[in-house]
Amino acid sequence: MMKLHIRPDRDTWPQLLARPERPAADLDALLHEVFGAVKAEGDAAVLRFTEQFDKVRPAQLRVDADTLAQAGAHIPDALKAAIALAKQNIERFHAAQRLVPTIIETAPGVECWREERPIERVGIYIPGGTAPLFSTVLMLGIPAKLAGCNEIVLCSPPDRQGRIHPAILYCAHLLGIDHVIAAGGVQAIAALSIGTETVPAVYKIFGPGNQFVTAAKQHAQRLGVAIDMPAGPSELLVMADGTANAAFVASDLLSQAEHGTDSQVLLVTTHADLPARVAHELALQLAQLPRKDIAAGALAHSKAIVLDDDAACLDLINQYGPEHFIICCANEEFYCRGIVNAGSVFIGSWTPESAGDYASGTNHTLPTNGHARAYSGVNLQSFCKSVTFQRISQAGIRHIGPAIEAMAEAEGLQAHRNAVTLRMRD
Amino acid sequence: MMKLHIRPDRDTWPQLLARPERPAADLDALLHEVFGAVKAEGDAAVLRFTEQFDKVRPAQLRVDADTLAQAGAHIPDALKAAIALAKQNIERFHAAQRLVPTIIETAPGVECWREERPIERVGIYIPGGTAPLFSTVLMLGIPAKLAGCNEIVLCSPPDRQGRIHPAILYCAHLLGIDHVIAAGGVQAIAALSIGTETVPAVYKIFGPGNQFVTAAKQHAQRLGVAIDMPAGPSELLVMADGTANAAFVASDLLSQAEHGTDSQVLLVTTHADLPARVAHELALQLAQLPRKDIAAGALAHSKAIVLDDDAACLDLINQYGPEHFIICCANEEFYCRGIVNAGSVFIGSWTPESAGDYASGTNHTLPTNGHARAYSGVNLQSFCKSVTFQRISQAGIRHIGPAIEAMAEAEGLQAHRNAVTLRMRD
Repeated sequence: MMKLHIRPDRDTWPQLLARPERPAADLDALLHEVFGAVKAEGDAAVLRFTEQFDKVRPAQLRVDADTLAQAGAHIPDALKAAIALAKQNIERFHAAQRLVPTIIETAPGVECWREERPIERVGIYIPGGTAPLFSTVLMLGIPAKLAGCNEIVLCSPPDRQGRIHPAILYCAHLLGIDHVIAAGGVQAIAALSIGTETVPAVYKIFGPGNQFVTAAKQHAQRLGVAIDMPAGPSELLVMADGTANAAFVASDLLSQAEHGTDSQVLLVTTHADLPARVAHELALQLAQLPRKDIAAGALAHSKAIVLDDDAACLDLINQYGPEHFIICCANEEFYCRGIVNAGSVFIGSWTPESAGDYASGTNHTLPTNGHARAYSGVNLQSFCKSVTFQRISQAGIRHIGPAIEAMAEAEGLQAHRNAVTLRMRD
Repeated sequence: MMKLHIRPDRDTWPQLLARPERPAADLDALLHEVFGAVKAEGDAAVLRFTEQFDKVRPAQLRVDADTLAQAGAHIPDALKAAIALAKQNIERFHAAQRLVPTIIETAPGVECWREERPIERVGIYIPGGTAPLFSTVLMLGIPAKLAGCNEIVLCSPPDRQGRIHPAILYCAHLLGIDHVIAAGGVQAIAALSIGTETVPAVYKIFGPGNQFVTAAKQHAQRLGVAIDMPAGPSELLVMADGTANAAFVASDLLSQAEHGTDSQVLLVTTHADLPARVAHELALQLAQLPRKDIAAGALAHSKAIVLDDDAACLDLINQYGPEHFIICCANEEFYCRGIVNAGSVFIGSWTPESAGDYASGTNHTLPTNGHARAYSGVNLQSFCKSVTFQRISQAGIRHIGPAIEAMAEAEGLQAHRNAVTLRMRD
């Protein structure tokens, strides 16, 4: 169960908050082999590695239009309705993120602005395995569509029958994503990076994955392909005081703990008696869970931290930089204003983290492992570039020209200066 | 001089537009040595490598407050005035980029929004060498300050006397950046990534550099430190028609060509007689340039491409994805609307690229090497994360709860479901 830390000294915080070290597997040889083969042989190599790693050889790499269109027949109506509601909310939240271009006249006759343009080709990776993560299809596919990406390629590993789970296919079809590839792992990322007969090369690759996929995405990045963000195990930090409902807090901690034994959950509080109440609820709820072994594994290295006051709690939380941050305390405003490093923030007792995972509208692809210090979660801008534009009038160049001339001269760049001088003379 | 390509077949475009291959130097051994030594020995290692690579051992790594404050004494008043004007315009343009939080009620009782938070610690790298790139101090320091980054560390290599150019120090001091380190190259990036006694570890590193700095930034990225973008040689593409002023076009091409022999400049036109007129102007202007050997080197592998119509030109330009894109033609609107892949766009005859390099207000740190397909140039958001917030009411969770339950169940994540079910029961 959670280990209790009462008023730990600030010197000990870095150690207390350290993420579990994941021994970085040396996959370089494998990455070079797979990327090299995919470059040389294309689809044939993707199929061969699928046979080798996934123990199946799909009849074709690309899922045909009929299979996509008919996936819905395997989805219960209640789930379809749930997906429709989630889709609507995710669309509303992400559609509101569009940048509206505003022309800034920085100086008389000097107009500058930004406009967003879609990344034309993007790849979306959806892991396979027992739990089909169809919600991630929505979280990545919806902003990609809203941004206007015109080539969206979805890769997901086939099961032993060579198929992708119908819930994943249903969501892809619902969003109008028709380029779906039954391939996963390093060979899928290699295909998206390099391109094959069936898989177009993309400019940016999104989506979660195991250590092989993560390493392959980093390798793709070295080849010049952009990626969404570095990946790591899921995390949740709950800040709660005496007003918090211990059962709710426990349920939120468990919902993150069930992701994997390497998930991190933390409870931070100013109330010394809260951890025991939460621990009691954890024990009750854990017993009921199908994935209780996984959740218990994560809880084994999780922590409850009691500190003297809100200021200390906020410092500790910002030092940790949680992926998910739940605030269940009376003075929630203090934490909302003060939080700097977090992926997504959930405020109040009626806002479970799982709302953001599925249906409130926010994105669930978020920075883990402390990357919230420098990275945002996925949003509409993740699928766009902002391009700057400028238009200077003859009066405008007269106004700022002398400054450009002086600076270019001082940097020893005479041709930069000449481009202005010529125009000033005219 | 520029090589002329008249109506090249579309099949030949990829080859025509290919960036010069830069043989990737294998710097892995060096990177591991320097990063390892900086981790083990801190400042001592930074100083030792500075002595080894830069042939100087500064008395101290950190520039003292007096030296910073007095740097202005070495700057002519005219240059100070130019810097002041540039600073004002850059501030105006970047300050207007702030995200204004808007609460989106995605469903009744479900409020979601984004807020920006500064990246607390950032590193800015300014190359040394003959030309002091003080303008880059403004381009990176101003948005960092506006974003509210509270630790800004500037590294720049010392000259043979152990000093940083006063123009760089003056700009740093003007912006209130007081943490300036006289170190460059791999050892500076290692220090920013890992931290030493004098150099705080940062979360994101910005700035241009040679192949050593670029490789070190990529290495830092593998260690979990974010970077601004992948680097490459500077580029400019001019789209011009018969209305363009050939002398202006030539001056813009030269202003990019003088950066380095590996710079890329392209002229695209529908007017078959324009390339010869521009070539004539290039020859006249080139002869006058102090850096004419460098510019001539870049022009030697540059291209003038004549195509039949605007649609073909736009396709080719988007396929190339230039860092800088100048539009000098009558139907400029067609190109403004249609451009998808570019870093920064300059419209009309009175808008030289050097305006954006120094003083119009837009940023000059832009994606090169085709990275404009997936990356934006540096902007205010480069120094921020956007954090999502959500607050759900009891009515709100009743509204979206059933959808969350259905989706969590279908993904096999029972604890995610429970977090909602518990609350729905309440």
